[in-house]
Amino acid sequence: MIRVGVIGYGYWGPNLVRNFADQADATVTVVSDQLAERLTLAQRRYPAIRVTTDPFDLIADPAVDAVAIATPVAFHFELAMAALRAGKHVLVEKPLAANSEQALRLVEEAERRGLVLMVDHTFIYTGAVRKIRELIAGGALGEIYYYDSVRINLGLFQHDVNVVWDLAVHDLSIMDYVLPARPVAVSATGISHLPGQPENVAYITLFFAGSLIAHVHVNWLSPVKVRRTLIGGSEKMIVYDDLEPSEKLKVYDKGVTVGQHPEDVYELLVSYRSGDMWAPRFDTTEALRTEAHHFVECVERGARPETDGLEGLRIVRIMEAAEQSLRARGKLVELPADVGEPEMMNAER
Amino acid sequence: MIRVGVIGYGYWGPNLVRNFADQADATVTVVSDQLAERLTLAQRRYPAIRVTTDPFDLIADPAVDAVAIATPVAFHFELAMAALRAGKHVLVEKPLAANSEQALRLVEEAERRGLVLMVDHTFIYTGAVRKIRELIAGGALGEIYYYDSVRINLGLFQHDVNVVWDLAVHDLSIMDYVLPARPVAVSATGISHLPGQPENVAYITLFFAGSLIAHVHVNWLSPVKVRRTLIGGSEKMIVYDDLEPSEKLKVYDKGVTVGQHPEDVYELLVSYRSGDMWAPRFDTTEALRTEAHHFVECVERGARPETDGLEGLRIVRIMEAAEQSLRARGKLVELPADVGEPEMMNAER
Amino acid sequence: MIRVGVIGYGYWGPNLVRNFADQADATVTVVSDQLAERLTLAQRRYPAIRVTTDPFDLIADPAVDAVAIATPVAFHFELAMAALRAGKHVLVEKPLAANSEQALRLVEEAERRGLVLMVDHTFIYTGAVRKIRELIAGGALGEIYYYDSVRINLGLFQHDVNVVWDLAVHDLSIMDYVLPARPVAVSATGISHLPGQPENVAYITLFFAGSLIAHVHVNWLSPVKVRRTLIGGSEKMIVYDDLEPSEKLKVYDKGVTVGQHPEDVYELLVSYRSGDMWAPRFDTTEALRTEAHHFVECVERGARPETDGLEGLRIVRIMEAAEQSLRARGKLVELPADVGEPEMMNAER
Amino acid sequence: MIRVGVIGYGYWGPNLVRNFADQADATVTVVSDQLAERLTLAQRRYPAIRVTTDPFDLIADPAVDAVAIATPVAFHFELAMAALRAGKHVLVEKPLAANSEQALRLVEEAERRGLVLMVDHTFIYTGAVRKIRELIAGGALGEIYYYDSVRINLGLFQHDVNVVWDLAVHDLSIMDYVLPARPVAVSATGISHLPGQPENVAYITLFFAGSLIAHVHVNWLSPVKVRRTLIGGSEKMIVYDDLEPSEKLKVYDKGVTVGQHPEDVYELLVSYRSGDMWAPRFDTTEALRTEAHHFVECVERGARPETDGLEGLRIVRIMEAAEQSLRARGKLVELPADVGEPEMMNAER
Repeated sequence: MIRVGVIGYGYWGPNLVRNFADQADATVTVVSDQLAERLTLAQRRYPAIRVTTDPFDLIADPAVDAVAIATPVAFHFELAMAALRAGKHVLVEKPLAANSEQALRLVEEAERRGLVLMVDHTFIYTGAVRKIRELIAGGALGEIYYYDSVRINLGLFQHDVNVVWDLAVHDLSIMDYVLPARPVAVSATGISHLPGQPENVAYITLFFAGSLIAHVHVNWLSPVKVRRTLIGGSEKMIVYDDLEPSEKLKVYDKGVTVGQHPEDVYELLVSYRSGDMWAPRFDTTEALRTEAHHFVECVERGARPETDGLEGLRIVRIMEAAEQSLRARGKLVELPADVGEPEMMNAER
Repeated sequence: MIRVGVIGYGYWGPNLVRNFADQADATVTVVSDQLAERLTLAQRRYPAIRVTTDPFDLIADPAVDAVAIATPVAFHFELAMAALRAGKHVLVEKPLAANSEQALRLVEEAERRGLVLMVDHTFIYTGAVRKIRELIAGGALGEIYYYDSVRINLGLFQHDVNVVWDLAVHDLSIMDYVLPARPVAVSATGISHLPGQPENVAYITLFFAGSLIAHVHVNWLSPVKVRRTLIGGSEKMIVYDDLEPSEKLKVYDKGVTVGQHPEDVYELLVSYRSGDMWAPRFDTTEALRTEAHHFVECVERGARPETDGLEGLRIVRIMEAAEQSLRARGKLVELPADVGEPEMMNAER
Repeated sequence: MIRVGVIGYGYWGPNLVRNFADQADATVTVVSDQLAERLTLAQRRYPAIRVTTDPFDLIADPAVDAVAIATPVAFHFELAMAALRAGKHVLVEKPLAANSEQALRLVEEAERRGLVLMVDHTFIYTGAVRKIRELIAGGALGEIYYYDSVRINLGLFQHDVNVVWDLAVHDLSIMDYVLPARPVAVSATGISHLPGQPENVAYITLFFAGSLIAHVHVNWLSPVKVRRTLIGGSEKMIVYDDLEPSEKLKVYDKGVTVGQHPEDVYELLVSYRSGDMWAPRFDTTEALRTEAHHFVECVERGARPETDGLEGLRIVRIMEAAEQSLRARGKLVELPADVGEPEMMNAER
Repeated sequence: MIRVGVIGYGYWGPNLVRNFADQADATVTVVSDQLAERLTLAQRRYPAIRVTTDPFDLIADPAVDAVAIATPVAFHFELAMAALRAGKHVLVEKPLAANSEQALRLVEEAERRGLVLMVDHTFIYTGAVRKIRELIAGGALGEIYYYDSVRINLGLFQHDVNVVWDLAVHDLSIMDYVLPARPVAVSATGISHLPGQPENVAYITLFFAGSLIAHVHVNWLSPVKVRRTLIGGSEKMIVYDDLEPSEKLKVYDKGVTVGQHPEDVYELLVSYRSGDMWAPRFDTTEALRTEAHHFVECVERGARPETDGLEGLRIVRIMEAAEQSLRARGKLVELPADVGEPEMMNAER
């Protein structure tokens, strides 16, 4: 039985508590939050849980084996590091940390101590994303041409990170999970429309070796909510619309082929293929339930999570580069070949 | 009665012929195309029209007052220049020319001879775009924050121009028409997925003075067709979906305001406003009918068209800059302050 | 402080408990269910609540002022009657009872004892339906021509009532609330596709005085979920799509007018009007929260609920007539002029 | 080469002329219409065609082998009968005639003279409907449970027939083509909202032997256009949405099965199956092109068309019965077992 402490009971924390409480092999023993009224709410719902306004009190509690952190990004590093140093396994809400140096130090600390460090990249635990990975890995799409995602809505504005760290982090982690390659460079643009606030709109292009290209559009100031990803391949193409109540995933047998011997510039060089569309069924278990189960299993077995600290570090490095490019209005920023592969990691593998 | 000659009877030419034939004050006298079977088709439909495989024969015909050009982009300049030199008014399919030098020479030639030079930026003549301009000009949206457009589908691949010159040209001309300012710099990315073919996917960010930003996503290799533009303002926001059979235009009373005295980083600084949505009715006349009528009127009255050569030149200059940026993977390219304003134009105004 | 006991903790009961628990002036003191595992679940979530497998034990508990009943329809009458006789106020899940005789006896019992009897017609407490009523009552639609509703999906099959009593009850109660008149006759068709099961598809037409007509299509065996109501009026028309994430309600300025002096059968007698569409904003509070609040208020003040027993009786009478017509394959069944107006009620008013 | 004469050049006639003109084995020789301006329009487009205001002049013309009739329904019988008596093959716009007696007389006249009599049930010639028939005939859907169609929009009001004869005729002919059985009885409701005009809204239930049921909802006064058909089967279910720009046809692997030995009324008797969805590709040739080709072939080969007079008669008989039921507010009207099978027809088969 893994005893979990949850830091932060605002927007996401209650979902963590509920899902860990539902696990057969886990129990939530302590919850902390700065605001007393949130703790009252937690206690009304779960009278057996101890509550505290001091997260370090929670971390120090011997009745806590693992700590889940759902605070503003600015506190991720300090709290996660303290928890690791106290010998606790750690699950951190996305993004892993506010910069790559912090993320790397967390990865190294967890590695050194043999503790589980997992980042809450929730979408990786959805049936839809797992099905996409399966389709791509199985070769159904052929050569992957592009990945294009739009993730826009009105609010919620964050104050300590911009829209890239809040929304694009989802797309970057999905790409890391489903694409057969890792990006080599990034160009981004964006702007803030509210004085003194972080950028609320951003456009990020990721370059890969070869002709694969990826693009992410994120916006906190859109009148409509959109969650739509297109993945184009030489054989098939996917539309993944997360707002569809059913048939979120559609696979199109569409594409083009180029003729070999055009004799005339007017002749049609490119021919089009348009076949059936297919919406595969996939597992619809709540992602956070699957994720909580996976975290508990990794802790029990000493296994490496699918979304481990290293993956969290890779995503943070891309976001840093994107932010750097965005502030230079699209200037290309190269990503190191070993993005997300710290020395000690490579050595061990 | 204006006598019109139409060069090119492939995809777009028949629409031009039909719409000029429908005008009370115009008649189509000659049609030319390189392919004999297309001319047979034209003549079967319109037995009174003379046909020829030689466009210069059409241009030289004294029974032609105005020439409409619907050929591949590569021939726009040569044909339009010949027509102007023959004293004919000219309507050129978008884009005006293959580069800005050509476009400028056409503008100057038309100006010198007092002839009408109009570019076929069709969307400017739709009821939807005119309504958008009216809403923005009337202040309904407040300060304009962003313009975001997605224009993607499968095909038709062009061979002499890339997807920017084929599809983004529509968005750039709409922006030129509806936005209160002109772009000052551009950053673009994109790629070709078919060997030896022009870029088939592109992402273009346009920077303006202040915090207005625009973005265009165009793609010839998408499994689904999308034609959707978002325009965000401080007071209201527009969604313009050209594929909706009705209610193409939706105006949302949505937005945010920033609090003045936040006392706490946890306090909500930003408050959201979500009111009614409104889909205004607008004129649904076929755009090309309105456009043909406007061209005929300009010829009759010696007036300057809404989409004159100068506008065509401005759009070509932006596409040149976008292509330059795209090939340098996002490198910022500044646009001259007088983009689209040749010396002689400024002097005259 | 109103102390509520909730009978039934299956699909709907937990929502009742949660919403009464959230009311400032109410508390849930007892929950009963036949199944022990459901009670375990209730107690884990709400440790202060007493649980029992015996609903009559709950009804007899002096710590219960009001009873909410969320059991299969077959038990509604017996439990509600026992609760009223024990002097408790009662909220019954829809439909009020399994037949009109039972419904009438409940109405009379509550009336005699001065107790609140409310039926859980949830949609009446949604912002959308309240806005529709406001628009119709304010005359915005002009003369009402028709009400047409489709409420279909896959499952959940009921075993003691057919699809009319499960799904059409929603539409009938909405009509009762928003329309300016009451139906005078009904014709219905439908069938069961599963041997030994209740009818799973039904079509109900309601006739009113004048030319108002209403139709409801319900189906438990549809591959897609639809919740769409059209309301046509002489001045405006409404589309209410409950599955839209936003803009559930759209008001169309569309209609026709008939010319007065047609001189020729070929002449167009009817002219069409197509204006703006408008999606009004409305309150999005969870309906059951509003409803729980209303029930508590009625109990405190001795007031008559908006969805009182009489309304429940009216709806049951229509469903009985619809079922009778359905079994006679569409045979018209007249509704009494005083449908839902028992003698004693009329006398008192 | 079949020489076709077209009577009526209003809404549908120009489509007939265009599609017959496009056939390799046909030519349009004469067009007639009461209105001179329509004939001017026809002649401007097709200068080689003779025009006349007198349909009997057209029928008598020896340069006409076959007559296509696109007039108001009231004239179908007289014109078609005259054409048959003049020895011409006949294509009649839907519905075949204004009543079943007329329809039967046309069928018999054509049979007697060995002439082709075809009714323009256009949807039968669409790729979508042909694919539906193929799926049902191949057993993919299992046992067919229901057919449900909604065909509503604003206008165009007809003056000589009601909405059943104008719109439901499409659904009835599609059912006749795709369903494995024919209806045995009908119950219909509906009303007219405009004084002195035909019924503008109607609901028709068709009963079949066994548990198959069909329903059609038609309305000329709907704020939104809907063209959606659901076909439920024991194995799979179809949604056919004719307004979808692509994927008009979706096949759902969804359904239910009933358990055999329920031990408890609370136990779930019915289990649900929800698998993949599949949108098969189908031929997208314009239906009227396929239909014109089929008519020409039947004339050339003396073959019986897929939508022959007998099918037209069957549909007219159902509409007559529906209208009779509608005027009696849902009263069941039995359809004769040999609906659409005149004596002489049966004898010959």
